[in-house]
Amino acid sequence: MSSVIKVNLPEQSYEIAIAPGSLDQLGEQMSGVKLGQKVLLVSNPMIFKHYGERAIASLKKAGFEVASYNLPAGERYKTLNSIQKLYDIALENRLERSSTMVALGGGVIGDMVGFAAATWLRGINVVQVPTSLLAMVDSAIGGKTGVNHPHGKNLIGAFHQPRFVLIDPEVLKTLPAREFRAGMAEVIKYGVIWDTELFDQLEASKHLEQLRYVKAELIQNILTRSCQAKADVVSKDEKEAGLRAILNYGHTIGHAVESLTEYRMFKHGEAVGIGMVAAGQIAVELGLWQAADTERQNALIKKAGLPTKLPANIEIAAIIDALQLDKKVKSGKVRFVLPTQIGVVKVTDEVPPDTISQVLASMR
Amino acid sequence: MSSVIKVNLPEQSYEIAIAPGSLDQLGEQMSGVKLGQKVLLVSNPMIFKHYGERAIASLKKAGFEVASYNLPAGERYKTLNSIQKLYDIALENRLERSSTMVALGGGVIGDMVGFAAATWLRGINVVQVPTSLLAMVDSAIGGKTGVNHPHGKNLIGAFHQPRFVLIDPEVLKTLPAREFRAGMAEVIKYGVIWDTELFDQLEASKHLEQLRYVKAELIQNILTRSCQAKADVVSKDEKEAGLRAILNYGHTIGHAVESLTEYRMFKHGEAVGIGMVAAGQIAVELGLWQAADTERQNALIKKAGLPTKLPANIEIAAIIDALQLDKKVKSGKVRFVLPTQIGVVKVTDEVPPDTISQVLASMR
Ligand SMILES: NC(=O)c1ccc[n+]([C@@H]2O[C@H](COP(=O)([O-])OP(=O)(O)OC[C@H]3O[C@@H](n4cnc5c(N)ncnc54)[C@H](O)[C@@H]3O)[C@@H](O)[C@H]2O)c1
Ligand SMILES: NC(=O)c1ccc[n+]([C@@H]2O[C@H](COP(=O)([O-])OP(=O)(O)OC[C@H]3O[C@@H](n4cnc5c(N)ncnc54)[C@H](O)[C@@H]3O)[C@@H](O)[C@H]2O)c1
Repeated sequence: MSSVIKVNLPEQSYEIAIAPGSLDQLGEQMSGVKLGQKVLLVSNPMIFKHYGERAIASLKKAGFEVASYNLPAGERYKTLNSIQKLYDIALENRLERSSTMVALGGGVIGDMVGFAAATWLRGINVVQVPTSLLAMVDSAIGGKTGVNHPHGKNLIGAFHQPRFVLIDPEVLKTLPAREFRAGMAEVIKYGVIWDTELFDQLEASKHLEQLRYVKAELIQNILTRSCQAKADVVSKDEKEAGLRAILNYGHTIGHAVESLTEYRMFKHGEAVGIGMVAAGQIAVELGLWQAADTERQNALIKKAGLPTKLPANIEIAAIIDALQLDKKVKSGKVRFVLPTQIGVVKVTDEVPPDTISQVLASMR
Repeated sequence: MSSVIKVNLPEQSYEIAIAPGSLDQLGEQMSGVKLGQKVLLVSNPMIFKHYGERAIASLKKAGFEVASYNLPAGERYKTLNSIQKLYDIALENRLERSSTMVALGGGVIGDMVGFAAATWLRGINVVQVPTSLLAMVDSAIGGKTGVNHPHGKNLIGAFHQPRFVLIDPEVLKTLPAREFRAGMAEVIKYGVIWDTELFDQLEASKHLEQLRYVKAELIQNILTRSCQAKADVVSKDEKEAGLRAILNYGHTIGHAVESLTEYRMFKHGEAVGIGMVAAGQIAVELGLWQAADTERQNALIKKAGLPTKLPANIEIAAIIDALQLDKKVKSGKVRFVLPTQIGVVKVTDEVPPDTISQVLASMR
């Protein structure tokens, strides 16, 4: 089982290679890309303990000169301070323009290493080796990189495409179950916005909530189809001028819920699950989508063990306010991605606030 | 007198408008570009005192909503800390993706504002209003942005093209004379590497060392031809994959001299002057360039009141060492830009260290 997806971009295209056990081929695979000799592998202590040495051994075997560094784990370290630390390490190891940073970790590591690579010497190579399901199907692909500002998530960042993405599904074995479920939310998202075949496959599976209950073949399919969906969208709209907005399906309400609960109550994917339920219902209220299809979507979200209700401690008015602070607001109007059928969505900023309130109220 | 230069780039092209007194048309001119309503004007206290209110008045007249902020003046504030301050101000003023930062100042302000704009919300608009000669002919054009790392200049940065560049030569009246001369070094550079007509015009002028001795018409020509030269090169090689390297003429030795004197003894342009003398002589030693043309170049550098000798306090061996630390080193080889005739240069990493030492020794 293995798949290769090509992400076609005007400036530099790259491949996403998905195969069980491929972590041990990291060096070999990177040799196929034109990269300099120096590599800085960045991870966090936990992930490094599981996979660091194997990655380094493979890189060394392929002739790379490897240094490594662990940033502390956790979203609260996704800050400019961590980036400054990476700059210091880059300098210490004399990284050159042709050098490569390798991000071995979840989305937090991937976003930070991507941003450091984007801004060191005005841009050096980055290779993404995502280890969480969310990073595999979402954050490692598409070139969005960045860190948080004390007052807002991902406010600081840059677009910087990886030169190569290696996905070894086997590393998911050590991923905490809750993280797996959170990643599954984004997979379901691709089914709803882009890929009916993926949607059908998810529907056909008895389980989605834990890796060990999901067939290896379905995992391979999920990864391949999700990456393909993201690659398709990103290839058509690298810098988020238009189409790419559809990837924010479920994120409008999702972000508001996350920020109002101070990123403590929900994983991002869990909030996106709630956001998809809300967006689906808004689409139904506006006569854009069939109620039966919303139910099918919500059944997948439940099957993945994700929440579908709004917690009692969030005021609906507070959500409406928080929407105004969203990065995606244009001239004060809130943008929603709404399904019109399974596999198809549209972007609109014409959702009446009353409809939003009413739908949210129904989700208690 | 006015000129407009178009910088053609695959993703987004932009114009450089050069006209005396045009600061008062900033708002009007920016209305011609598709930009959002919110503008954050960033300057330093000194430059703001001279030109801030005029710029703001013009922006407001054109209907922009304007906030402004002054960073402290000086290269030593070109740091990530200043960028963090700009992020805070951007947040305070609720800048959106369609918003614009306007850099009113020399290269230091331009580089920082460019970098903040490159990385806020993964990239918002920036308009450059350069006020130093160096910024007008060099740093405001071409999209290089960044700040210094405590251990090296411009190590942190990004490519981020401005949406518009407005050059009002009249603001040069308040520029300190030494800054004017430093900027003239880059003008001479364009004559040597790209534009023989510019070279001839500089040769024909009796004075180059102070603004008030140089005819307004020549200033307009100098700005127009220099910007055109930079625009030509950048259009052909936005991300420094090849051709753009020629803009580093004089910078190889120049940077080494600057860093060895800890950026205190020389202005950047002065060091570039010394670097051009060195590179010219190296080209002669290698049989690439005629001695007579080197002399013509050196005469211009002198006429601009720029140094052409190496200071006694720098060891030649130290320069050779410092070259190894240069950002432009590839796999350990030092890259030189060398003239082959006036208006034409080549890039090479095949300069024997002995030749470098010998040329430097002759410059005492
Ligand atoms: N760049 C983008 O396009 C994009 C898209 C979506 C999300 N993101 C960002 O991604 C981040 C979230 O990513 P995430 O969900 O991967 O979080 P994460 O990186 O924090 O990883 C989640 C947890 O799982 C652990 N982990 C990861 N892989 C593991 C493995 N194989 N074995 C054991 N433990 C493992 C991590 O150490 C961490 O504790 C957020 O910061 C978000 O902003 C970015
Ligand atoms: N981005 C690029 O492509 C690029 C190219 C070359 C240089 N640079 C950078 O540019 C910086 C140097 O730029 P610079 O030489 O303009 O230095 P600068 O910005 O420090 O300006 C020099 C001095 O002149 C003052 N000044 C500027 N305009 C004035 C005016 N009209 N009236 C009165 N005072 C004025 C400034 O306040 C400052 O004190 C360096 O940091 C260098 O790294 C960048």
